Amino acid sequence: MSTPIQETIHQMGRQARAAAYKLAQLTSCEKNAILHAMAAAMRGSAPVMLAANARDLASGSEKGLSPAMLDRLRLDEPRIEAMAAGIDQVATLPDPVGQVMDAWERPNGIRIEQVRVPIGTIGIIYESRPNVTADAAALCFKTGNATILRGGSEAIHSNLAIAAALASAGAPEHAIQLVPFTDRESVAALAGMDKWLDLIIPRGGKSLIETVVSLARMPVIKHYDGVCHLFVDKAADLAMAVALTVDSKTQKCGVCNALETLLVHRDIAPAFLPQAAAALRAKNVELRGCAQTRAILAGRVTGFQPVSDGGHPAWREKSSGWKPAPPNRQDSCSPSIIPATEDDWSTEYLDLILSIKVVGSPEEAVSHINTYGSHHTDVIVTANEATAERFLREVDSACVFHNVSTRFADGGEFGFGAEIGISTDKLHARGPMGLRELTSYQYRVRGNGQTKAG
Amino acid sequence: MSTPIQETIHQMGRQARAAAYKLAQLTSCEKNAILHAMAAAMRGSAPVMLAANARDLASGSEKGLSPAMLDRLRLDEPRIEAMAAGIDQVATLPDPVGQVMDAWERPNGIRIEQVRVPIGTIGIIYESRPNVTADAAALCFKTGNATILRGGSEAIHSNLAIAAALASAGAPEHAIQLVPFTDRESVAALAGMDKWLDLIIPRGGKSLIETVVSLARMPVIKHYDGVCHLFVDKAADLAMAVALTVDSKTQKCGVCNALETLLVHRDIAPAFLPQAAAALRAKNVELRGCAQTRAILAGRVTGFQPVSDGGHPAWREKSSGWKPAPPNRQDSCSPSIIPATEDDWSTEYLDLILSIKVVGSPEEAVSHINTYGSHHTDVIVTANEATAERFLREVDSACVFHNVSTRFADGGEFGFGAEIGISTDKLHARGPMGLRELTSYQYRVRGNGQTKAG
Repeated sequence: MSTPIQETIHQMGRQARAAAYKLAQLTSCEKNAILHAMAAAMRGSAPVMLAANARDLASGSEKGLSPAMLDRLRLDEPRIEAMAAGIDQVATLPDPVGQVMDAWERPNGIRIEQVRVPIGTIGIIYESRPNVTADAAALCFKTGNATILRGGSEAIHSNLAIAAALASAGAPEHAIQLVPFTDRESVAALAGMDKWLDLIIPRGGKSLIETVVSLARMPVIKHYDGVCHLFVDKAADLAMAVALTVDSKTQKCGVCNALETLLVHRDIAPAFLPQAAAALRAKNVELRGCAQTRAILAGRVTGFQPVSDGGHPAWREKSSGWKPAPPNRQDSCSPSIIPATEDDWSTEYLDLILSIKVVGSPEEAVSHINTYGSHHTDVIVTANEATAERFLREVDSACVFHNVSTRFADGGEFGFGAEIGISTDKLHARGPMGLRELTSYQYRVRGNGQTKAG
Repeated sequence: MSTPIQETIHQMGRQARAAAYKLAQLTSCEKNAILHAMAAAMRGSAPVMLAANARDLASGSEKGLSPAMLDRLRLDEPRIEAMAAGIDQVATLPDPVGQVMDAWERPNGIRIEQVRVPIGTIGIIYESRPNVTADAAALCFKTGNATILRGGSEAIHSNLAIAAALASAGAPEHAIQLVPFTDRESVAALAGMDKWLDLIIPRGGKSLIETVVSLARMPVIKHYDGVCHLFVDKAADLAMAVALTVDSKTQKCGVCNALETLLVHRDIAPAFLPQAAAALRAKNVELRGCAQTRAILAGRVTGFQPVSDGGHPAWREKSSGWKPAPPNRQDSCSPSIIPATEDDWSTEYLDLILSIKVVGSPEEAVSHINTYGSHHTDVIVTANEATAERFLREVDSACVFHNVSTRFADGGEFGFGAEIGISTDKLHARGPMGLRELTSYQYRVRGNGQTKAG
């Protein structure tokens, strides 16, 4: 027996499937015209949306949502205009649907084409930001997919108003549907409906993703944490290493492609760490270091001098090992570094905090990243091409960078024009997901009567 | 608290991950040499495998397995040679790992490469055929993936012997592991282990796949039924349509790309069905028809004549509708056709049985296929290019064919050289899966110090 919520959601699923077949037949031109009409409808519905949003804000205040939560929930004219402009922008992007990915002929004369087609029906389950409603719906619509959106309870009135505006713009009926329920049962009903939903994308915190993963019978594309690393190799250019560290950590710290752990080759650490620490502290970054990091930044490690390493500048310890520092030497004049715990190595701070570890070799850096990282984005800074290539090949992450800030792990920076998220999965889509990653493919084969029996 | 079985399987998972990192670094040359050594080890271990297989066969007989099941379980010299030759063949295929799928430069000078990499660790859960152990392990090894194989209880001794032979050939330790348990708890343990397994591929019947889908926290690539259709359009060449129908149904009937439902345009049905029925009956195919099919094959429908349809030969009814036949006319001399029930339209017979339905238009055929089919492989036979193109575009299946037998939906026929299965999923891999579909990708980005802040 199914509950009323399940019945409603299954009905939405059947409707989405029917809409998907209509959507798949629209030309790019038709879809783009509807997208522009959606943007216009968003602008035209601004007063309605603001009123709906005011209800959400009022009940959010009553429930005691934090100022940050209320700000995420808030719509205003500029934010509505940004959503509309985003939809207009999606209309201008190339349509991947119908692209021939590969084509070949077999000796028996059959001609095989691998052609991009829409995935079909996509469920988006998200939390408080109402702009996801417009962003996700536009990207899925552009790629010919029908969407069922299920947003959080805080934004339900805003989401309903946005979905109504989008649906009024001439898209096939049920191409964009918003679930009117915000309880957990509606998530379970969506996640169990593998006959009608081809894919679920959860957009939100870890507990939301975990819930969807444990319930879902269909594929889920996950956007988990970004525990991103930057490894400063012994052959790094010092100024570049400092600049990339500061940019990766501070250019925007609350995002998944921000730097969380800095790994530093032992041979360059005494030269690099004091400069990096000064630059990071100037940006108010709290540092949490391993014992060696703390020893260096406390000035307790001495006796290094530059040596040559295959033509690259590098640093080596002049005498063996770490010297115990004279008591209190310099400690009083350098700010103390918080000791990093085991937990720090796998923490996504999303804040002005950086963990730092000194490692003995690029191999140790790779091993640390593959063990503690989230397989999102990891960087090596080095002038040694061979070391760089090996790092890129051995780090098991969606994005591996050489001499580039972590912050470039982004669909926009990659030139995708739009991004539905950054997948930490390895199947179907990995890393920044643009329109192409919202498609599947189909083999179209043409012959003239070929039979297997010959 | 975890059970001993869970602990063993989690330990295998950790070992698989470590092995995967080693495997990912092997060159194609190194992998191919090991594959050839695996084939040699298979040949060298034939006596051991046959002894192990004899134990499985003996306990299978005791348990009362059917002769067909026992035959599937049986190893003999030719079958062992076939497995070994299959591994040698995989060694000769091009290695997708390391291929640059796409490469571009951004205006800021960063150079982005999308490179194929192994998926990592793959669980294969399968039933009675021991050859899956060798086939799946070889394909996964070639693509740099570590595998954990979990076969059925009937074949456990055979599987252990095969896995031991494979593991003795110089692959990194734990690259190929066989789960020594065959109970359901071991499936649950594998399916819950998303930290250590990147993908599960169940190979077997629907209930096995359903079990894995409901338990799995990681992506599952499913190989469900093939309820494949062939639609004979009114503009079909009659002889070609008959030949393709017979080939699709009878060239091999126990496979997922065999024809299960024949759809026939109303206008060509009176000319086509008697010829097709005669040819199918000559191959001992049982026919189950809709009312119109039965009426035509009973000779109760008359009054058709060929007319022209846009230059293509076609058939139209001369007078309106279906005429009630004179009582008993011809019925006695034509074999009776079993009435098709609603269930027939979604049944994969895997046998010499064919359901037949007369439809009024290509649109009705498409709608029937999208409703009742399994989105595997569907064919249109027509001389009308426009009708064909529309069919290919509107049918929501992995393989859509024009004037080609369903039996060509196969990795070998597509030229992939090897096949791990035919995916009925839309995400990651759809349709025949070769080596390429056993890979993921990674973005490798190279710059010279680019920062987002500029």
